[in-house]
Amino acid sequence: MAHVEREERWGEHATVDDRRNEILRSLGMVLRERGFGSLRMQDIADHLNMTKGNLYYYFSSKQELLFHCHMKCMDVSMVALAAVEHDRRDAAQKLRWLLSQHISGILEEAYGAVLLTDLEDLAPEHRRQYVTLRDRFERGVRSLVREGIGAGLFRKTDPKVATFSILGAINWMPKWYQPEGTWSAREIAKKFSDYFVQSLLA
Amino acid sequence: MAHVEREERWGEHATVDDRRNEILRSLGMVLRERGFGSLRMQDIADHLNMTKGNLYYYFSSKQELLFHCHMKCMDVSMVALAAVEHDRRDAAQKLRWLLSQHISGILEEAYGAVLLTDLEDLAPEHRRQYVTLRDRFERGVRSLVREGIGAGLFRKTDPKVATFSILGAINWMPKWYQPEGTWSAREIAKKFSDYFVQSLLA
Repeated sequence: MAHVEREERWGEHATVDDRRNEILRSLGMVLRERGFGSLRMQDIADHLNMTKGNLYYYFSSKQELLFHCHMKCMDVSMVALAAVEHDRRDAAQKLRWLLSQHISGILEEAYGAVLLTDLEDLAPEHRRQYVTLRDRFERGVRSLVREGIGAGLFRKTDPKVATFSILGAINWMPKWYQPEGTWSAREIAKKFSDYFVQSLLA
Repeated sequence: MAHVEREERWGEHATVDDRRNEILRSLGMVLRERGFGSLRMQDIADHLNMTKGNLYYYFSSKQELLFHCHMKCMDVSMVALAAVEHDRRDAAQKLRWLLSQHISGILEEAYGAVLLTDLEDLAPEHRRQYVTLRDRFERGVRSLVREGIGAGLFRKTDPKVATFSILGAINWMPKWYQPEGTWSAREIAKKFSDYFVQSLLA
């Protein structure tokens, strides 16, 4: 039965993008249970009930899968960061929304499980691309903290310490988050983004 | 020259405990550079300029080394937690001191690099022992947060959200901490424990 449903999901109506995203979500789910080092393409294929050959049609290697999962994990956050730049709300409201989107992006679709892997598992060029985005996001958060302090909304604090505290706590979430746990991804996004912003208020 | 100095450090005056601690620090330093999975006892021995046979005299396996490094990493924190229970200062002062000790324990002696590994790398019995201590520490922090809220010192917030935010941010520190970086371990302990407590003040 489960097998039939799977087959249907891989049917004609799915686009290449749908399939690639499905594969990336699977990597995330498998990564939640075990490290990247011992993982084989076959494990991902098994998880999706597809053949290894079919999997290779979408991604040429384990490395490439990991890289695209990293990029996918940053997608929501980067879109949110771009939106915040044209947002006229105050720094507290913008920061709360941005962090909430960032947390959802990490937890909701299982992509955030890449945070459980070593950056060293990425090929150097892939790592460079990912770190560029990650650093851009960090600078965006830091600049909102600075904006809030400048406007007298946030207490006077070192923006780097605040940013590292907030983003570190978020990066650690995939370690304790359980999809079947007490809090849903959305609830965590709401509770923690509220907490982080309250922490900064003057 | 470096070799001679090493040999002297492994000379007659060192106790078994000294040597075991030295080995655990080495594991931490090696872990900062690479994952646990591909690590061999020989790598640790090389790092210390000792023979593999000599290393096995102190630790019977890679697993045992990892376990003792985890326990060592909790040592400072557990001692600090016990001290705080008999401390008459207010919750803010106690929490600031406890977190500062906890951060120092993780960063100063390189033991904290175990936080870069998967808990699954520990044997089940070892994992149980470590998780018991880690949970006890977490409950200690949570109870100080609750105490501070009860005393009107801290703002009304969910103690679990506050505790997960603070401890998550600390657990992530070994990912970005550089022993040769701008901030020393002590400075990080000071700046971040201040930030975490300020975040809670009413």
